[in-house]
Amino acid sequence: MARWEPNARERLVLAALDLFTEQGYDNTTVTEIAERAGLTKTTFFRHFPDKREVLFAGQEVHSRLLADGAAAAPDSATPLEAVAAALDALTASFTAEQREFGPRLAAVIAGHPELQERAAFKHAALAVALTSALGKRGVPDLTASVAADLGVRAFDRAFDRWIEPSSQQAFTELAHEELQALRTAALALG
Amino acid sequence: MARWEPNARERLVLAALDLFTEQGYDNTTVTEIAERAGLTKTTFFRHFPDKREVLFAGQEVHSRLLADGAAAAPDSATPLEAVAAALDALTASFTAEQREFGPRLAAVIAGHPELQERAAFKHAALAVALTSALGKRGVPDLTASVAADLGVRAFDRAFDRWIEPSSQQAFTELAHEELQALRTAALALG
Repeated sequence: MARWEPNARERLVLAALDLFTEQGYDNTTVTEIAERAGLTKTTFFRHFPDKREVLFAGQEVHSRLLADGAAAAPDSATPLEAVAAALDALTASFTAEQREFGPRLAAVIAGHPELQERAAFKHAALAVALTSALGKRGVPDLTASVAADLGVRAFDRAFDRWIEPSSQQAFTELAHEELQALRTAALALG
Repeated sequence: MARWEPNARERLVLAALDLFTEQGYDNTTVTEIAERAGLTKTTFFRHFPDKREVLFAGQEVHSRLLADGAAAAPDSATPLEAVAAALDALTASFTAEQREFGPRLAAVIAGHPELQERAAFKHAALAVALTSALGKRGVPDLTASVAADLGVRAFDRAFDRWIEPSSQQAFTELAHEELQALRTAALALG
């Protein structure tokens, strides 16, 4: 078999989601995922440590996109403007294909406490990455962590809206709307 | 062996923490934990599904304390005042013994990604419980979730300070300080 496997990572993610949806997460093996993707188990393990991580493949890339996006905001940007820039960078990386498999991904995670734990950890890891990036901009620690929490929550809420089949809005626009709504809610705490 | 085992739950938690600290989390079995506690494996499984859950035993009780505390706040309380009442109820439940084993608990969790995931999930579960309790008070959904996030973050930060050996302040007082500091940070986002 050729050592060059185009889009191996994406093929494995799609194959895994198909199988998890068809026959259940617990009943699906790494061997089956690799086979469905037309790849070997060895190739699978070059990309993911186990079947669970296929579902959270984006964590490192997403953390980096958030951090780079926040870092690239103008010096004059407020903490929340830097968060908005981070969300721009992250949401711009999502493809139409990711939108299409979003509901299946959400359904698999919702069905397994183990996956919900992993999702909570991803959420926390993204918040840590964004907090750290804001800190490098000189934002005080506590402000940075509150702003980052709002940003990651805005991302999650925007993602849920974006993957709805009836949704017409761009992911980036939804993220801005959610961040603005969360900001208003935070300020209303008074 | 007697079927009545006084403080079985607490004894199992302490035995587990001792063993995790002495010989590592991965190297410790449920059988060893039960033996160290002077109890049977059957008793262990009456209290916990596995060794990991020993470390997160408080999740349900803590969720209920937060919810009950928020519910018991005066009708006139603002969302953050209700969060403060929830933190009062939760922090008041902690014992000197829990403070003493806090650093060992934190060290075990910090050493294992699997446990950090579980901790992130507990954090999220507490926030969901508090959001829901605020919702029942008529707090709008988004405001409730922002206020609950601040509350759970205040709890985590106060816990970290409270378990420091040099700490002199009451847990409740620390939680109030942290909530106030987070509120100030949120409002400063402007």
